[in-house]
Amino acid sequence: MAQCSDLENAIKTLVTQFHSAAGDNSPTLKTDEFKGLLSSQLPNLTKGAGSEQGLTDILQKMGVSDGEGISFKHFWDLIQSLAIGQHGLLSAEKVSTCTCIMM
Amino acid sequence: MAQCSDLENAIKTLVTQFHSAAGDNSPTLKTDEFKGLLSSQLPNLTKGAGSEQGLTDILQKMGVSDGEGISFKHFWDLIQSLAIGQHGLLSAEKVSTCTCIMM
Repeated sequence: MAQCSDLENAIKTLVTQFHSAAGDNSPTLKTDEFKGLLSSQLPNLTKGAGSEQGLTDILQKMGVSDGEGISFKHFWDLIQSLAIGQHGLLSAEKVSTCTCIMM
Repeated sequence: MAQCSDLENAIKTLVTQFHSAAGDNSPTLKTDEFKGLLSSQLPNLTKGAGSEQGLTDILQKMGVSDGEGISFKHFWDLIQSLAIGQHGLLSAEKVSTCTCIMM
């Protein structure tokens, strides 16, 4: 089988991380599942999400309505904002590749 | 320094792959640079992009105007469509994690 490139592996990681966080192969995440994913995979972001208000703010920014599950599209919009921020840092100046994503 | 999570590493890979493909720290890619990135990192996608028409079609779908550079946002929209397709496959049935992204 062909080996996946770095880019293909990165895309696969983003997809499977979301998918693994969802119970019962569901296409959406419950709030608790999303919170768990954030704290294990995006700890710098969850400095705000540790509090209920912080998590509510993040969900609001992602356009998730009250009681609505978090879809892959919601999740992707969050990832996009992190990536665009990261790219902006790279374009502005040389950033060490050891730097994790800072929010 | 804190270790990056799988998700953080994946985002970083997407960003740095694009950034590395751009000459002179430019925020956009020239068509040749984008073509090079595709053939090395998304070979399955570039089965179509090997021909001039195939690449034109991909650029058109990404909303890149004639003579316009490929921005990070353009690139991200392409990655998004691949990821959403991949997620759709995962939600529909169990897919081996060895499978690279198929277009």
